[in-house]
Amino acid sequence: MSATTLTVKIPADVMESEFKRILLKYNFTETKASALAQIYTVNSLEGVYTHGVNRFSKFIKYVVDGHIKPDKEPVCIHSMGAIEQWNGQLGPGPLNALVCTDRAIQLADQQGMGCVAIANTNHWMRGGTYGWRAARQGYAFIGWTNTIKNMPAWGGIDAKLGNNPMVLAVPYRDEAIVLDMAMSQFSYGALDLHALRNQQLSVPGGYDKNGVLTTDPASIRNSERTLPIGYWKGAGLSLLLDILAALLSGGFPVVDVSKQNVENNLSQVFIAFNLSKLKNSNSVPSLLQHIIDDYHRSIPDKNAKILYPGERVLAVRAENMKNGIPVIQKVWDEIVGL
Amino acid sequence: MSATTLTVKIPADVMESEFKRILLKYNFTETKASALAQIYTVNSLEGVYTHGVNRFSKFIKYVVDGHIKPDKEPVCIHSMGAIEQWNGQLGPGPLNALVCTDRAIQLADQQGMGCVAIANTNHWMRGGTYGWRAARQGYAFIGWTNTIKNMPAWGGIDAKLGNNPMVLAVPYRDEAIVLDMAMSQFSYGALDLHALRNQQLSVPGGYDKNGVLTTDPASIRNSERTLPIGYWKGAGLSLLLDILAALLSGGFPVVDVSKQNVENNLSQVFIAFNLSKLKNSNSVPSLLQHIIDDYHRSIPDKNAKILYPGERVLAVRAENMKNGIPVIQKVWDEIVGL
Repeated sequence: MSATTLTVKIPADVMESEFKRILLKYNFTETKASALAQIYTVNSLEGVYTHGVNRFSKFIKYVVDGHIKPDKEPVCIHSMGAIEQWNGQLGPGPLNALVCTDRAIQLADQQGMGCVAIANTNHWMRGGTYGWRAARQGYAFIGWTNTIKNMPAWGGIDAKLGNNPMVLAVPYRDEAIVLDMAMSQFSYGALDLHALRNQQLSVPGGYDKNGVLTTDPASIRNSERTLPIGYWKGAGLSLLLDILAALLSGGFPVVDVSKQNVENNLSQVFIAFNLSKLKNSNSVPSLLQHIIDDYHRSIPDKNAKILYPGERVLAVRAENMKNGIPVIQKVWDEIVGL
Repeated sequence: MSATTLTVKIPADVMESEFKRILLKYNFTETKASALAQIYTVNSLEGVYTHGVNRFSKFIKYVVDGHIKPDKEPVCIHSMGAIEQWNGQLGPGPLNALVCTDRAIQLADQQGMGCVAIANTNHWMRGGTYGWRAARQGYAFIGWTNTIKNMPAWGGIDAKLGNNPMVLAVPYRDEAIVLDMAMSQFSYGALDLHALRNQQLSVPGGYDKNGVLTTDPASIRNSERTLPIGYWKGAGLSLLLDILAALLSGGFPVVDVSKQNVENNLSQVFIAFNLSKLKNSNSVPSLLQHIIDDYHRSIPDKNAKILYPGERVLAVRAENMKNGIPVIQKVWDEIVGL
């Protein structure tokens, strides 16, 4: 095992304490430090290392450099009934996103559905965090964010689009079905993790410098020609998600996010649906079970496992809770040194 | 040119009159016949032949067979503020979808955003119809439908998912930016059109009977193993869109739609956002222009045209308005014989 792939297993409570220690040192309040430490730990515990432990040092660097402002909180600047526009004031993205999720839920309690669009926020890390949060409370959820330019328009070679992750979630049993997907075939986080582990991608993830489709993460990082999901389709969806996020929030579109030195001043949308107010609310659990049961009865190709989005999370969480969260040694060393 | 690809050019007004004549014959009221004839003609005029003229005879067959009920209209069965649940009563899908679009707009006028979820409806034909309709009136729009099973779960070989088309639209100049996409790399309509024209697909669209990725539309039709956009990602998005459509409408999910002999009793969702009520409503046109200008400045790969979703429609519409709508001869002959 090479130095770049050597991992250590960190118990979740140890990781959370360490994150909190550092966040307090960098001027987060007790409440904010606790909330952020929990998000970064749970994201890691549930296997989304790219937007958990692997990203923590960068978050602190952004705080030190003034891109993320620990003392800022989101404020509502305009209300239209079921939809509100908020200003994130460059506060920490995950905390802004929690506030927006909870506010969309409150609006859904009043109006059946609610939407919060936020401008001037920071990276929300793992979009699934907010889908799980809403779904665990019994709400259906749709949310998305824009990003810095990292993907070409269809037919183009230079990055013009963000990979603009989108999240859809519904409650299921005591857990949730959560789809958390970027518009690129692979997120940059996933490309980096494959590169760090010296692994090829399972399917082509973009083009190399010569315009040839490739499974090599480093070549794609180099060309910045990531492949949109479904070729022209994912490129189109990315454009529309960016437009909607910027229009609804009144914030920056991808083109303006990308004029900055770093990825901030993002625009995001959070929509919650109150399932308990539906005429058919009593049959929601049985309907979901019926759909998932049929889905699970798929005839597998060879030994493929047929999993619904988020299903893998349950096993990863249990495994990491039992044995500790696997962290690349040099990533953990950097964190401990903060 | 073979018999299957021989085309005639039909002027839009001739097509619309012919559709209306037939619809009146099959017991549609004057108002409904006019509205349906217009939708089928405009879809064809704008190049979506698969969900326009090529589909008209099948629509009439469904009327004759009792799957589509000309005298039925959608009714609101439950209201929760910004969101309503409707029953389509198996009325004609495009007319039901128009009612839902317009009602979502009314709700958006009251609450900033509005959502109508409809159960027991029929195929809406071209989803873009409703996106264009909302966007032309100044609203942003998100909508989707479920379908009959036509795509495997990721890792599966038997069809378990619908390709569940989704539409996102925003107003742009006097027209609109409209993304209208199925979750399969190619819609079944597109597969059929390629097969009819004896054309291969531009990128792999599914698997053949032996599980090999292929660009041959007939092989994919045969295996029913269409490829989801972005592999596992589009499969996941399809599942979530179906779940949301069925939960929010209280209607059939894909699994139950597929237990019928034909594709009806569909579930659909229509969401409208009132952009004129936004704090930044005055800057919406300039923000959109700014985004699209940057998008159009993409460096093209070879001689690729960089088009936003819906941009091609403008040219096709102008061309077909001038020269007539190209229709496969045998398709037109069948219609004239109705």
